[in-house]
Amino acid sequence: MNDPQLPLRPNIAEMEGYVPGFQPPDAHTWIKLNTNENPYPPSPAVATAIAGELGGEGENLRLYPDAGSTRARAAAAEAAEVYAYPPEWVIMANGSDELLNNLIRAFADPGDEVAFVEPSYSYYATLVEIQGARARRFHLDENFNLVDFPARYNGKVFFLTSPNAPLGFSFSRECIADLAARCVGMLVVDEAYADFASTSAMDMVHEYPNLVVTRTFSKSYALAGMRLGLAVAHPQVIAALDKIRDHYHLDRLALVAAEAALKDQAYLHQRVEQIRATRERFSAALREGGYTVIPSQANYVFAIPPDRNGEGVYTRLKEHKILVRYFARPNLCHGVRISIGTPEQMDAVLQVLEV
Amino acid sequence: MNDPQLPLRPNIAEMEGYVPGFQPPDAHTWIKLNTNENPYPPSPAVATAIAGELGGEGENLRLYPDAGSTRARAAAAEAAEVYAYPPEWVIMANGSDELLNNLIRAFADPGDEVAFVEPSYSYYATLVEIQGARARRFHLDENFNLVDFPARYNGKVFFLTSPNAPLGFSFSRECIADLAARCVGMLVVDEAYADFASTSAMDMVHEYPNLVVTRTFSKSYALAGMRLGLAVAHPQVIAALDKIRDHYHLDRLALVAAEAALKDQAYLHQRVEQIRATRERFSAALREGGYTVIPSQANYVFAIPPDRNGEGVYTRLKEHKILVRYFARPNLCHGVRISIGTPEQMDAVLQVLEV
Repeated sequence: MNDPQLPLRPNIAEMEGYVPGFQPPDAHTWIKLNTNENPYPPSPAVATAIAGELGGEGENLRLYPDAGSTRARAAAAEAAEVYAYPPEWVIMANGSDELLNNLIRAFADPGDEVAFVEPSYSYYATLVEIQGARARRFHLDENFNLVDFPARYNGKVFFLTSPNAPLGFSFSRECIADLAARCVGMLVVDEAYADFASTSAMDMVHEYPNLVVTRTFSKSYALAGMRLGLAVAHPQVIAALDKIRDHYHLDRLALVAAEAALKDQAYLHQRVEQIRATRERFSAALREGGYTVIPSQANYVFAIPPDRNGEGVYTRLKEHKILVRYFARPNLCHGVRISIGTPEQMDAVLQVLEV
Repeated sequence: MNDPQLPLRPNIAEMEGYVPGFQPPDAHTWIKLNTNENPYPPSPAVATAIAGELGGEGENLRLYPDAGSTRARAAAAEAAEVYAYPPEWVIMANGSDELLNNLIRAFADPGDEVAFVEPSYSYYATLVEIQGARARRFHLDENFNLVDFPARYNGKVFFLTSPNAPLGFSFSRECIADLAARCVGMLVVDEAYADFASTSAMDMVHEYPNLVVTRTFSKSYALAGMRLGLAVAHPQVIAALDKIRDHYHLDRLALVAAEAALKDQAYLHQRVEQIRATRERFSAALREGGYTVIPSQANYVFAIPPDRNGEGVYTRLKEHKILVRYFARPNLCHGVRISIGTPEQMDAVLQVLEV
């Protein structure tokens, strides 16, 4: 291929693209525990809503969707025990990734500092590079407390993944309140996995106008394939995100899927309870077998084998067509992240690992 | 509402949001000719493909989509009479708006110049503001030639809407070749409406590595509700856009919809021919009635009444529950943009206008 010397921005030309977790083309022949998908289908109300919007011939698809996601935002507002915010405090998104991206665009000019925890979701670093901002990483001590976080932090955005990925612990509400008070810029609590946790910062957005809480439909709502997320924040933040997003970012089928999923909180709760029970049983069995398992608040566990050889566990499971996530990095290579599937799938893991 | 003085970037705090064309909540009670939607449903293969991917209970939706849009890109490559590029020259997108946005992010740093034609798609200006770049507008003379375009243009991106929106004429291939040669940066030919035209720059991408051609599925493919677009460009440009986009930007249902629509070129061709025939008949009738109608290469016409009072036409039609697009700007207020609907819908327009 010839190189036409196109005038790309240097940060774009030099960056590596983000590589998401491996999706095997023959996914149905694997026990797939590597990308924290939900082992159960979404609420049946979702398929019903999509089929209804689709109609027989897809007639509605010729018309633009509602640019304001009005019904989906109202449904989030009405799912009061979870969100408890009026619609002007809520924005829907094409996956929570869209929100993370647009939060950086709203607050960080090129050269500005954006921070996140190491380890956490590695996509933050990619988004910072796209914007031409500077990434700062805060590390964790052995008790999962942040090291050297300033009394007054001047970075534009600080992403706090809680529950943490891939380790699975949650930051306490006291910690989050303390961080919100220290941050001059925005504190974004990425609660992708919070439906599986016993704690959340969602209700704290009222008190801290610089606090944004993001959620995804990819995990607890079993809608990774539909690309849906939402954020709760002060209306001034929501208004800025509404200006930045593509006006028609969500298609008609995604919009009705979001609304239907949000309205079926009973189904969500039931599936979350199943996954939490499986998580506790699986964690206990691994510990019985000599593994160290970080107490998890998410739909995965970070498990450390007695020989601290994460790659060995990954390889053994892969030989039996079980995919888990191994991170070849100094602070994570001693373990693996295993998504919580069905009880039968987790039994298969335990059998291969002989615990 | 209190003002918490959040540290928004100044360009974001100060900008107005983009306002898309009005979508009446009771759309089915209107003859809706204001946002250039297709009056016919999409290919029946689209609804079949979506229903197949959905399955009975939406089981597949729990799994992430293919981040690389592999099958949809291959389908675009195989629709050879239209696109004629291998997959590495093609990128799929969540509407062509996503591509316009990411092209600016790929090439223009804040402060850099990005240009477009006035009048054309007003969303370019919004995207330039989001990036903190500088907008430059090139105007048209009475023969729709660009005025004062430099022999060597140093702006980072120049968006050329062809066919032009809202005027409906196409730029000639000779003009586009000349512009590509003059542009040091990227020339993006936004061919949202090119399926309705007799000319396209698609095959010229091979020759000009700084040329990008974007297409949407919202008009000719009747999929405005599904948010799909594509671009053809040199693989170096495609690779940059792949780094910038959200990795899972397209959901599972959108991906199969794109693939199915691209594979049914016969249906596309048939519907496009119907709309072109209606456009010619409608344009002739308006001219008979004393209107000036710019010869259109798109699925709309820009029509100028004898009294040059565009707002009057808009208001009369609205009183009869027919929505068209009026632009209250000095260079456009003498006419209205009318989308081409079914023959019956256009007859209704002619009847209200008494021509």
